[in-house]
Amino acid sequence: MKDFDTIAAIATSLGEGGIAIVRVSGDKALQIVSRIFKGRNGRTIDDIKTYTMRYGYIIDENNEHIDEVIVSFMKGPRSFTAEDTIEINCHGGVVATNKILEQVIKNGARLADPGEFTKRAFLNGRIDLSQAEAVIDIIRAKTDLSMKSALMQSEGGVSKEIRRLRETLLSTIAHIEATVDYPEDDLEEVTADMAVKQLLEIKDEIGELIETSEEGKILREGLSTVIVGKPNVGKSSLLNALTKENRAIVTDVPGTTRDVIEEYINISGVPIKVIDTAGIRETEDVVEKIGVERSKEKINEADLVLLMLDSSRELDEEDKEIISHIKDKKYIVLLNKSDLDVKINKDDLKELNSKYMINISVKTGEGINEVKTTIKELFFKGEINANNIIITNTRHKEALFRAKESIVSAIDVLNNTFAIDLASIDIRNAWSYLGEITGDSLEENIIDKIFKEFCLGK
Amino acid sequence: MKDFDTIAAIATSLGEGGIAIVRVSGDKALQIVSRIFKGRNGRTIDDIKTYTMRYGYIIDENNEHIDEVIVSFMKGPRSFTAEDTIEINCHGGVVATNKILEQVIKNGARLADPGEFTKRAFLNGRIDLSQAEAVIDIIRAKTDLSMKSALMQSEGGVSKEIRRLRETLLSTIAHIEATVDYPEDDLEEVTADMAVKQLLEIKDEIGELIETSEEGKILREGLSTVIVGKPNVGKSSLLNALTKENRAIVTDVPGTTRDVIEEYINISGVPIKVIDTAGIRETEDVVEKIGVERSKEKINEADLVLLMLDSSRELDEEDKEIISHIKDKKYIVLLNKSDLDVKINKDDLKELNSKYMINISVKTGEGINEVKTTIKELFFKGEINANNIIITNTRHKEALFRAKESIVSAIDVLNNTFAIDLASIDIRNAWSYLGEITGDSLEENIIDKIFKEFCLGK
Repeated sequence: MKDFDTIAAIATSLGEGGIAIVRVSGDKALQIVSRIFKGRNGRTIDDIKTYTMRYGYIIDENNEHIDEVIVSFMKGPRSFTAEDTIEINCHGGVVATNKILEQVIKNGARLADPGEFTKRAFLNGRIDLSQAEAVIDIIRAKTDLSMKSALMQSEGGVSKEIRRLRETLLSTIAHIEATVDYPEDDLEEVTADMAVKQLLEIKDEIGELIETSEEGKILREGLSTVIVGKPNVGKSSLLNALTKENRAIVTDVPGTTRDVIEEYINISGVPIKVIDTAGIRETEDVVEKIGVERSKEKINEADLVLLMLDSSRELDEEDKEIISHIKDKKYIVLLNKSDLDVKINKDDLKELNSKYMINISVKTGEGINEVKTTIKELFFKGEINANNIIITNTRHKEALFRAKESIVSAIDVLNNTFAIDLASIDIRNAWSYLGEITGDSLEENIIDKIFKEFCLGK
Repeated sequence: MKDFDTIAAIATSLGEGGIAIVRVSGDKALQIVSRIFKGRNGRTIDDIKTYTMRYGYIIDENNEHIDEVIVSFMKGPRSFTAEDTIEINCHGGVVATNKILEQVIKNGARLADPGEFTKRAFLNGRIDLSQAEAVIDIIRAKTDLSMKSALMQSEGGVSKEIRRLRETLLSTIAHIEATVDYPEDDLEEVTADMAVKQLLEIKDEIGELIETSEEGKILREGLSTVIVGKPNVGKSSLLNALTKENRAIVTDVPGTTRDVIEEYINISGVPIKVIDTAGIRETEDVVEKIGVERSKEKINEADLVLLMLDSSRELDEEDKEIISHIKDKKYIVLLNKSDLDVKINKDDLKELNSKYMINISVKTGEGINEVKTTIKELFFKGEINANNIIITNTRHKEALFRAKESIVSAIDVLNNTFAIDLASIDIRNAWSYLGEITGDSLEENIIDKIFKEFCLGK
């Protein structure tokens, strides 16, 4: 374990809650908290055992009580950071929690950077980088499915797969280098053939992982969706119908850099982010209030367009213009009011793929399930299943891409030249790119960048 | 201890945090969590000791991991609720935390009402009502001083005082009744004199407590303040100057019933709530944008008016009208730009108390300390000191009022009639009113009302 200073931060989300936690990690954690803790009957925590708790008070310089607390101790390496860790469990509330943190800092801890606890877990070797990244994905997960996928990654699902690929690459390199070391044996051709075979397999496996990444990104970040349609065509009712079973998860993210509140609805595990900071209400009368131009803008920004039309009326020019703009997007056209007489002219819809056109009635519920199925069909190849490894992280995807390119290049070299030792440079590059995912090969500044995106206290 | 069902709730403020806690309290807490917990090496928590923790996973019906957790156990009565309590310490995040809560509920716990954990602590006799009420005050405290005062109350500061007063009342009653039982002894006059003496003392003590309640309310709820002044007179700069030492505490309260974010600044321990949901910025050009009428409204709503005038200019009609409206409020007139030549006509200010008129320069810092001192002077009689008992709660104040009235009535009876047993009815009423503060005498529906104002999970 490395030698770090002792850090502290408020680990719970700050606000009015029943409990808040100040977390302290490092060699001096026990010593620092011991100075400001007064147990029942004056008992200290100097002799506290790992994985036990003590009840008492945090006191200030004048020996006065700041708050009633329960202190728990986890001795390293069996703790989140793999260092000695103390958690001070106090009454929630902004003032009390901040005052306790202040005392901890005054007594020798340093205020932790965002993500620094997880970074320590990584630097101390308890978890690798992809596991560390999964920690923040668990916190930010929007649906059960994204949660489950993040948890699998945190348990080492992705890492295990990457390590296996790297080992195979390493053995291929060893084989090539052994051959090069004994050129008189004239084994080069045999070795090259074998290496190509191995590399093609790895290339396919990496390709499969990359293929999961589009779905993974959606699971992690949600599907940016705009619902377009005239006023009173039934957009709000549709939203209600879609979220009926899976109640809307409203994620309130007042974080450090963002001042936008994002709203998500959950459709069979797919987080659907409804575009616009003003939320659904502004979208409600998007056509009326802000016209075709603004609708086009929204459509361009979105991953998915849900265009609602009233099938009991004929389309007007605005509708038609909007239709001409969604052709190149992923879209679903919802012909609402299927319970009424159809007056819409099918010719007006001929540019659109009929596969993604659904008769619905938000009034009767007709077609709602088909909408859900179609969303899944549009974005997911098979069953959405977090039990398979899914690449959710763009950084991982990019590393996989570069690794794949290096392998393609290695295969080229092996096929076209007799200098097979040149291929081992490419293979080594692929090995190194894959290592970026687990953090085995990565620059310090990139690591810093990754953890900076964490929230405080984690 | 009473026989309750087992309850559960998320105890930390919900949002993106490093840690979140699901709290379970009741006879079946251990049994319920045991069913959904899987420890390292398959170890259960059936044999967990009080004040210890276990690392593991919460699992769902299919034995699949929901989240990595640390479970801690506090056996009743040594817990917050005085019941067996389990806290499930998980990765923060909305989805994971909710899923864990869901599993706990599925396995037999009931979702706790707001404040129900604290209510149990009260109903189980671990704390009295004024201590219970202090718990939510600790969470909502705006400054160190309000925090400290709430903590003292939670430690029984108020209760101790009230109990002492009640005991004295009870002994007075006993004395009177003993006298009445032996009328032949003709002691009534002597007893009446003694009782009056005792009651006068108690009346004064209650009066002193009531006198602290105005200050107490301010400590607890803050001072609703409006800063009025022309654009560019220096209102923002004043705010910055006032908060320089004590950084602004912005309490973000998106609670269940309120959708307004309140901003507090802290002046020597007094929480100053700046009026208007739009915060300082809208107030900034209150005169310009919304005119005199709107300013008058704001002035009427406020506990304190800070009127900023530019002393380097003459006043206009609007300024003068505003001045005529603040006379009946608590106000401080700030004559800013004292570093420039004085052009303001002192006659225009003659209606105002010169004691509350301060020459300041937000540019040089002149007068800022005087502003702080004057705010304290206006609202606090002596040093603000949470080491003395302060009545912060309006409910307590009302009970004290009614107790005092009953005592006054008892004194009247004793002084004016010879039927001294009639006085014991009033004294008993006073005793009962005081008991409402500690919860010794209180209707069930009032208790429910008190705890409904708590946040969830406490």
